[in-house]
Amino acid sequence: MPFRPIRPQGRTLSRADCERLDSEDSLAKYRALFDLPANLIYLDGNSLGAKPKATSTRVAHLLEREWGDGLVRSWNEAGWADAPRRVGDMIARFLGALEGEVIVADNTSVNLYKALMAALRYQGRRGVVLTDAGNFPTDLYMAEAVARQFGTGGVRRVPREALLDSLADDVSVLTVTQVDYKTAHMFDLADITAVARARGILVVWDLCHSAGAVPIDLSSSEVDLAVGCTYKFLNGGPGAPAFLYASHRILSHLSNPLPGWFGHERPFEFRQDYVPAHGVERFQSGTPGILGLTALETALGIWLSVDMNEIRRKSVALTELLIEIVETRFASLGIRLGSPRDPAVRGSHVALTHPQGYEISRALAERGVVIDSRPPDLMRFGITPLYTRWVDIYDAAEQLAGILESESYQHPKFRIRLGVP
Amino acid sequence: MPFRPIRPQGRTLSRADCERLDSEDSLAKYRALFDLPANLIYLDGNSLGAKPKATSTRVAHLLEREWGDGLVRSWNEAGWADAPRRVGDMIARFLGALEGEVIVADNTSVNLYKALMAALRYQGRRGVVLTDAGNFPTDLYMAEAVARQFGTGGVRRVPREALLDSLADDVSVLTVTQVDYKTAHMFDLADITAVARARGILVVWDLCHSAGAVPIDLSSSEVDLAVGCTYKFLNGGPGAPAFLYASHRILSHLSNPLPGWFGHERPFEFRQDYVPAHGVERFQSGTPGILGLTALETALGIWLSVDMNEIRRKSVALTELLIEIVETRFASLGIRLGSPRDPAVRGSHVALTHPQGYEISRALAERGVVIDSRPPDLMRFGITPLYTRWVDIYDAAEQLAGILESESYQHPKFRIRLGVP
Repeated sequence: MPFRPIRPQGRTLSRADCERLDSEDSLAKYRALFDLPANLIYLDGNSLGAKPKATSTRVAHLLEREWGDGLVRSWNEAGWADAPRRVGDMIARFLGALEGEVIVADNTSVNLYKALMAALRYQGRRGVVLTDAGNFPTDLYMAEAVARQFGTGGVRRVPREALLDSLADDVSVLTVTQVDYKTAHMFDLADITAVARARGILVVWDLCHSAGAVPIDLSSSEVDLAVGCTYKFLNGGPGAPAFLYASHRILSHLSNPLPGWFGHERPFEFRQDYVPAHGVERFQSGTPGILGLTALETALGIWLSVDMNEIRRKSVALTELLIEIVETRFASLGIRLGSPRDPAVRGSHVALTHPQGYEISRALAERGVVIDSRPPDLMRFGITPLYTRWVDIYDAAEQLAGILESESYQHPKFRIRLGVP
Repeated sequence: MPFRPIRPQGRTLSRADCERLDSEDSLAKYRALFDLPANLIYLDGNSLGAKPKATSTRVAHLLEREWGDGLVRSWNEAGWADAPRRVGDMIARFLGALEGEVIVADNTSVNLYKALMAALRYQGRRGVVLTDAGNFPTDLYMAEAVARQFGTGGVRRVPREALLDSLADDVSVLTVTQVDYKTAHMFDLADITAVARARGILVVWDLCHSAGAVPIDLSSSEVDLAVGCTYKFLNGGPGAPAFLYASHRILSHLSNPLPGWFGHERPFEFRQDYVPAHGVERFQSGTPGILGLTALETALGIWLSVDMNEIRRKSVALTELLIEIVETRFASLGIRLGSPRDPAVRGSHVALTHPQGYEISRALAERGVVIDSRPPDLMRFGITPLYTRWVDIYDAAEQLAGILESESYQHPKFRIRLGVP
């Protein structure tokens, strides 16, 4: 998608410009659907998305009526047993997948294990698992675990920029995160998938920083396997269950390395021998967590009405705005862009680097701007177009400038380490 | 624990006797802590436990204050990141384990996979995985999966009554459910563990139908590895997260086959190489589901004040009452006891068998008595002493007698199959 800068006569936007752009924003109406604390600029929805207002009422209903009154009967009567597939189909709709290709289950780490092991078994040969050396830690750990367990040629870690050139003949499976959790660098799903397939390599995509962040069309991109997270851009709630996508083209040939009773063809017949469910339900293992699924289903109700192209347009515009302010106003203050300059290969957050990135992020928090930091020197400013406003970016940049100019981040209190995910 | 029958002059109890026993019951006060529908006799708390009243308020607080206001900061400030260990320590307290031996994570199926694989790796040799042929399906499926993946001598399934005699030299790991999900037959943890250890066999216990049902002392029983469920007797909610126990004696030698970022020694440093957490935290994989953990923590707040010997005393008395009524009043109506007659080897539910057990369970539901059935002919009457009353058993038995005597279960409407877990 081409980027169209929104700048009056080439100058950087003023706060008044931002207010005007907010008033004209076709997505502005969505912000009212979320609970957001007053006087807080929240730019960490790429780590934990904001809470939809509707979630409280829906979860209270689950607790009081479905669990409290319905008790065990609600597995049928309230549709609990079908929730993993039903919510999966909602995710499928806005990721451009088909019905029956997505299941909601477990967390991303466990789903990565399932997808990677399924991919290796599908390939059959003992090749290398190729991955991005800077992939998210859990992706690296799981790649090592499956390679060891499957007895492949091990894991080959290469720099992200060398991935495409590393699709060698001895590679069996490539696993890569579409949007990098640090830099926000974005791969094209269709391109990589096509190049890999031409060489007989199966790709397991991690969509944690893509789902709800950038337009995705799994079908037209001919993706085979993917996993992703729902507590970031999708607003499912802290530790919300993850999803696993398997293309209908290969699904019936894939096996779940964690075969639990909920993935059985007939779970409620309690059979002693495992027969996988016909569809993507086979990628379930144990009993699904209904509280998490219900909160997620509520949040997805918002997403199904959203035009992902609108999301992308605003996301690009806001990341550009932040980058432009940094470049024009305080590039001299030791801050550098850690994300691609080209929005075409950038997801929905902006990474800025500074040797004291951690301290600066804590100084921002004290001023009511929530971002996060990643070792050693990265600050992430997440753009969640459903509730991030133009003025939020403008004001956050102002606060950042103030902190940098005054060097207030040098105060010892900002050095105390907190373990924020 | 010896069973003391509570029968006036050897006769079966009357309803008035039951009312008196309820009024004298030291556990009766707990019933008021749960939401239970009026006019419903709930004898399926062994499948899904009732909802604690406190859960609604606590989860609403989580949603509104911790997520809504606190947002990502609550991983630290509301203690989310520590919840798996903190809630695990609560479970440890009432299972007689030490602090740091229990983690709450994932579901039972996934934890079984972790524990079984860890056990096989610990053993090092390629022996047989021994299990009860009638074990819960997920336990059987996972045993097969790990045996295949580890390349052992496969899985040996023997009848439950033959398990102890099957602890042969070629067995590496025994996995067994302490209280059988169908019959409620109960093994002694210490006995089996000791016999197995003497033969070099490691035991992975499944405590799904034990935790909150019968007194457990993992330390004095010298149990090495166990998993269990929290949505049955413990009232954690539908699909509540499961637990994994690993003895401090061997914990540092155990590895998690699903090594995710939350089980890393320093998850928030996002390191590229996996180093397992020092303690039981290593058995975490991905990001924990905070909604489920919070509901569980609320329920455990009740359990920590409960004397498990009182629970057991009442559980035995109520199962005995039900069995006595069946034996004395309508044994001639085609119903048979599917549980051990000796309460010393019986858990906290009563299995009755009848060729039309499914239809009878549905006829009971129509009369306001919720039990469940298991193929082909089993009906399970669950006793949850925190909220099951003497009169509930008496009244349920009356309803059962009425259905059997009138053969009302023959009505075609009761034949429609529902997939109740």
